[in-house]
Amino acid sequence: MRPLRIAMIGCGFMGAAHSQGWRTAPRVFDLPAAVEMSVVVGRRADAAADAAQRWGWAGSATDWREAVGRDDVDVVDIVTPGDSHAEIAVAALEAGKHVLCEKPLANTVAEAERMAAAAERAAADGVLSMVGFTYRRVPAATLARDLVARGEIGRVQQVRACYRQDWLVDPGAPLAWRLRKEHAGSGALGDIGAHAIDMVQFITGQRVRRTTGVVDTIVEERPLPPEEQDGPDGRRTGRVTVDDVALFTGRLDSGALAAFEATRFATGRKNALTVEVSGDRGALAFDLEDLNTLRVYDRTAPEERQGFTRVLVTEPGHPYLAGWWPPGHMLGYEHGFSHQVKDLVEGVASGEPPHPSFTDGLHVQRVLDAVERSAAQDAAWADV
Amino acid sequence: MRPLRIAMIGCGFMGAAHSQGWRTAPRVFDLPAAVEMSVVVGRRADAAADAAQRWGWAGSATDWREAVGRDDVDVVDIVTPGDSHAEIAVAALEAGKHVLCEKPLANTVAEAERMAAAAERAAADGVLSMVGFTYRRVPAATLARDLVARGEIGRVQQVRACYRQDWLVDPGAPLAWRLRKEHAGSGALGDIGAHAIDMVQFITGQRVRRTTGVVDTIVEERPLPPEEQDGPDGRRTGRVTVDDVALFTGRLDSGALAAFEATRFATGRKNALTVEVSGDRGALAFDLEDLNTLRVYDRTAPEERQGFTRVLVTEPGHPYLAGWWPPGHMLGYEHGFSHQVKDLVEGVASGEPPHPSFTDGLHVQRVLDAVERSAAQDAAWADV
Amino acid sequence: MRPLRIAMIGCGFMGAAHSQGWRTAPRVFDLPAAVEMSVVVGRRADAAADAAQRWGWAGSATDWREAVGRDDVDVVDIVTPGDSHAEIAVAALEAGKHVLCEKPLANTVAEAERMAAAAERAAADGVLSMVGFTYRRVPAATLARDLVARGEIGRVQQVRACYRQDWLVDPGAPLAWRLRKEHAGSGALGDIGAHAIDMVQFITGQRVRRTTGVVDTIVEERPLPPEEQDGPDGRRTGRVTVDDVALFTGRLDSGALAAFEATRFATGRKNALTVEVSGDRGALAFDLEDLNTLRVYDRTAPEERQGFTRVLVTEPGHPYLAGWWPPGHMLGYEHGFSHQVKDLVEGVASGEPPHPSFTDGLHVQRVLDAVERSAAQDAAWADV
Amino acid sequence: MRPLRIAMIGCGFMGAAHSQGWRTAPRVFDLPAAVEMSVVVGRRADAAADAAQRWGWAGSATDWREAVGRDDVDVVDIVTPGDSHAEIAVAALEAGKHVLCEKPLANTVAEAERMAAAAERAAADGVLSMVGFTYRRVPAATLARDLVARGEIGRVQQVRACYRQDWLVDPGAPLAWRLRKEHAGSGALGDIGAHAIDMVQFITGQRVRRTTGVVDTIVEERPLPPEEQDGPDGRRTGRVTVDDVALFTGRLDSGALAAFEATRFATGRKNALTVEVSGDRGALAFDLEDLNTLRVYDRTAPEERQGFTRVLVTEPGHPYLAGWWPPGHMLGYEHGFSHQVKDLVEGVASGEPPHPSFTDGLHVQRVLDAVERSAAQDAAWADV
Repeated sequence: MRPLRIAMIGCGFMGAAHSQGWRTAPRVFDLPAAVEMSVVVGRRADAAADAAQRWGWAGSATDWREAVGRDDVDVVDIVTPGDSHAEIAVAALEAGKHVLCEKPLANTVAEAERMAAAAERAAADGVLSMVGFTYRRVPAATLARDLVARGEIGRVQQVRACYRQDWLVDPGAPLAWRLRKEHAGSGALGDIGAHAIDMVQFITGQRVRRTTGVVDTIVEERPLPPEEQDGPDGRRTGRVTVDDVALFTGRLDSGALAAFEATRFATGRKNALTVEVSGDRGALAFDLEDLNTLRVYDRTAPEERQGFTRVLVTEPGHPYLAGWWPPGHMLGYEHGFSHQVKDLVEGVASGEPPHPSFTDGLHVQRVLDAVERSAAQDAAWADV
Repeated sequence: MRPLRIAMIGCGFMGAAHSQGWRTAPRVFDLPAAVEMSVVVGRRADAAADAAQRWGWAGSATDWREAVGRDDVDVVDIVTPGDSHAEIAVAALEAGKHVLCEKPLANTVAEAERMAAAAERAAADGVLSMVGFTYRRVPAATLARDLVARGEIGRVQQVRACYRQDWLVDPGAPLAWRLRKEHAGSGALGDIGAHAIDMVQFITGQRVRRTTGVVDTIVEERPLPPEEQDGPDGRRTGRVTVDDVALFTGRLDSGALAAFEATRFATGRKNALTVEVSGDRGALAFDLEDLNTLRVYDRTAPEERQGFTRVLVTEPGHPYLAGWWPPGHMLGYEHGFSHQVKDLVEGVASGEPPHPSFTDGLHVQRVLDAVERSAAQDAAWADV
Repeated sequence: MRPLRIAMIGCGFMGAAHSQGWRTAPRVFDLPAAVEMSVVVGRRADAAADAAQRWGWAGSATDWREAVGRDDVDVVDIVTPGDSHAEIAVAALEAGKHVLCEKPLANTVAEAERMAAAAERAAADGVLSMVGFTYRRVPAATLARDLVARGEIGRVQQVRACYRQDWLVDPGAPLAWRLRKEHAGSGALGDIGAHAIDMVQFITGQRVRRTTGVVDTIVEERPLPPEEQDGPDGRRTGRVTVDDVALFTGRLDSGALAAFEATRFATGRKNALTVEVSGDRGALAFDLEDLNTLRVYDRTAPEERQGFTRVLVTEPGHPYLAGWWPPGHMLGYEHGFSHQVKDLVEGVASGEPPHPSFTDGLHVQRVLDAVERSAAQDAAWADV
Repeated sequence: MRPLRIAMIGCGFMGAAHSQGWRTAPRVFDLPAAVEMSVVVGRRADAAADAAQRWGWAGSATDWREAVGRDDVDVVDIVTPGDSHAEIAVAALEAGKHVLCEKPLANTVAEAERMAAAAERAAADGVLSMVGFTYRRVPAATLARDLVARGEIGRVQQVRACYRQDWLVDPGAPLAWRLRKEHAGSGALGDIGAHAIDMVQFITGQRVRRTTGVVDTIVEERPLPPEEQDGPDGRRTGRVTVDDVALFTGRLDSGALAAFEATRFATGRKNALTVEVSGDRGALAFDLEDLNTLRVYDRTAPEERQGFTRVLVTEPGHPYLAGWWPPGHMLGYEHGFSHQVKDLVEGVASGEPPHPSFTDGLHVQRVLDAVERSAAQDAAWADV
């Protein structure tokens, strides 16, 4: 198969992680096609050129429309902020390019719907699309999904998923764009709550159908960032217009309840995405801060020996591990981006669409929307 | 001071634990008064006599009213099921006896109100009352309270408290009295959710003022217990009329949110009461399944060395530890009952009422009630 | 069966723990005989009387010979320092009393040999003897032994056992009797290393046959205790004549190697007795600082799910648990003393000698002796 | 500065890890020089060409001598088995190339001495050399070294270091070259024990001066590998001529004792390199199976709050972290190879030799030799 030529739109933090994925996957896995990192696009020419140089892209550009239309581009990888996802993705799909789009799929349900519709149309022509919920591809998370799918924990009866960080505990942290509704859509809910929702839906194979929601802003006023101050001693402040914490409950397809928490105020928790799935034959517990392990409980084991088994997910038979190191040699955060590339390239080669689809991403968006609607109606249940 | 003479009403499981407390506290602590285990009361004479013999009570009886009225009784310890608490406690208080009442204080708010009123009247005569939320007296929990009270974690910004068990995961577990509303009042909510509420209120020094609530019954039909079957092969079943799981959110005095979960369906979790309190200077994490430790996070430490410190709460300076063993020698479940006896006896000696008061217990009852009211109104916020 | 009447010789710290065992076991377990706490013996009359009063002994005395000879005593429980064990135990055995003797059995091999010989002679008359290695009776340790005995981890191939404390890290800690060879025999080696040896022999069912040994004294000079100073500002110091740390290797019956460490200088470790047994079918890991759990590894499980299972040893089917609390309710340090009483009383009733025997205790003594001989000969292997 | 052109000699497993380091470091860190992956050398032309293609080397070759002599090569990276290290390294150094040599430096002390001498001669001309003990460059390990160097745990009083794996527990595992003395030099001792020694010396800043040693071969006879069998059903076996387990004790410069264990028979332990350093002011504990954390104990903290603090070593101020991801985003095994490249390139640019030097590597070799000499003389102390 001929090489896949990639254009990456965006050159911020997520661009570094995606580039590492594109650069590394072909060195680790036997991919059905070579990967060519053709062009990285940024608004400012110097930043884009620096990014290309640093991350290993053959060229750089400033006009995403031009890049998306190039004949020598097969895949468009979108790592810009959420408010530009829809426009870029739809254009790329219409230009017949496969699209990988960072999560969240969009900032609004309406945008996400447009994207999902475009993805469906494109699929008819064999054009693939995929949302970048990479935590699914932490091997322990994929193993969790596999175990549930094989019935090893039985019927899912209850779920908990928390994503807890603490980077806003300091009240002097400035009013960044992530804290403004007009740019970020929502706060902890959309940024990290979206991951929690995706992980629950992925691992259980079920969707959230109804939600209740409580959201709160703990620090309501923060200093404006330096560039919006009058001078170096500026003390201007602005209002935080997104949530700091979101507590919500979901009802899954089967009727099982899922408890969710997304917060940036869990002092001492840095990146603690935890998911616990309780079934009638066993249970699973995942923790992103201990990402090379999965805890598995087997209710069918002899009672005397039951307990949570701490499985080190580094054996060659574990998901994605065959390409990496020997047992006990740990993987880190960015390995998921290589796994994402692997699955996308294999999908292109086989024609089999990789998960999660834009429709999956749209559904997450709808759950987020239902949580906000519930919060606005005194926390009462809202349909997704 | 002359000895305190105790009458214990009830001789079930909690009677064993309370007896261990009465028997052990005077051997471990320098109490201001001796303790005499005078009489244990049970409905059936033989069971009461057995209990007296086994647990070390001087005598046994079947009529609690008679026992409560005895001149040679100073303290009445109530360990019966919740539906009889109010009647016994009020009678004992009116007879001028100090009362220790197992949690929950009562099955209904109305009963709890009567009890709190009686306790207040009795207090005017120097008669003390106390609710048996013993988990407060696990040294690590008391230390947590002390640290919050001294401001060591700063302003409390967010709280999580879960109490998770799994003894109902087996759908063949019989329809015991705890699963019938008429006897138990509620299910996981009142039985273990009450502990979670009390711990949060105790550790933060704040009360829950509003709640949302979702409750669910996962297994709705269960086999009747053997004594209600036609014969040894009986297959009669009955309806579970209490909750199996309760997910709720509380708003504390300060406005901080607390997320709660109480469940008997968390496969693999046996007695997992966990409380995490996040403040603007630090955080605390308690786990009843690891009860000799408290995890403490200090945001004011040098960044390079910040993390959760696993404090082994077995040093002589830790709460209640001076009476026990050297550092690193663990305490268990029942030690809290000795601490409860210590505090009650010291309270009687000093006239200083021990916590938690019946008013504290009443407030827990009101929170439980608000959760149920919220659940009945589609999970919308309800005032406590 | 008629009640067993106990005389306890010694009233220090271990007396408190033993008393708790005698007092509690009959309340928790269905023993075949009642227990009467008849008399506690101490050198000073007032201390003995206080101990009797505090711990619940019917009487007190100062002459152990008299107590040991009393007709109304059936069991002699020795909790004095090691240098008096031999004399008391032999006298008691010769008087036909069952003997429970705190570990270590004695300070020297010669004494231990005399005791073991006396125990064998007494056994012919149905008189029992037992050494107080109570950590065997932590349920998780007993379960570990059971699993090895049933072959669940296969052939034992390697063992590690460490007992680590840190109470001597402070160089200003005074020169207590435990730091003087003439009173204590040895330091960390005999005090806590003896426990590690006993646990390994108990769990594996094998004996240590050869050893190498390295011992060291880290702080060689310490302040004399206050009572040996000239006055309140005294700065007199003395030489530490026992080891602070002992590192040794043992060869077991089967040829498997066991690595041992005993230290009072492991900063931050309070009472960390850890034992890990590796077999060709699985492994076990025990930690006294997490004593309600046992970690079990099963090499025969599907590879994908292998890992250490954290078994909460609180189920009714676990050793000793039937008498205690529901699952997930923790036990502590002193519960082992109740289990010891249970096994001793049942042994007396059945005539079946409880473990560990004086011969077992003698063997531990011989291992300690071999370690010291090895250390004296440049760490070269020494036979036990 | 002009680019550094690299030749890598060897294309086995370690080649993959080194390649990842060369490829990634310039993308993550601001290096003072560019890196060009010029040529990879392997014995077989096809394997070398495949490796070049897969790992991103510009070319491949089969003659290491030719590659080492090329004018357009600045750095020689040696990842061959240990028995060829000396010859290649000395030739490269004499050709004026900087050398990075995988650990262990060599199979024998004599070889290592030749290499260290060549490195010293080359250093006079500004040619650098470095041994690939990459675990030093796990950020948590580097932080441990920093904390010790700054006196934060005070005087080091005791050390433990274990490296435990279990890949030989299966007696049917074939007699690979690593199990034959003629190829591997030694077994667990040299392969993983060397890491343990290096980590202790690195973190404490001290060297091991004397050792005792016990080594053992648990499974003495194993099936020959398929290529040495007569046919597919061959049952020929051969003798294991290296150690499976090594238990040894080291005496450090300061006189402190270090306990070591290296084993391939610790059932359930995959890659468990653990180091615990106990000082008179605190302690540190590192675990390669939990490599993003360091546990730190501070004896100078208020007693009530002392405990091991689990530091998540992912903050921007932690060693090497500035180039990577936000806090709480984990690193894995291969990140150390990027850190190694960073330090080597910076060393070349500055002229400051990076650690560990060939002399450091030689010292590790001498410690291994002393352990083997001790083992041969009945475990008695041997000087390094």
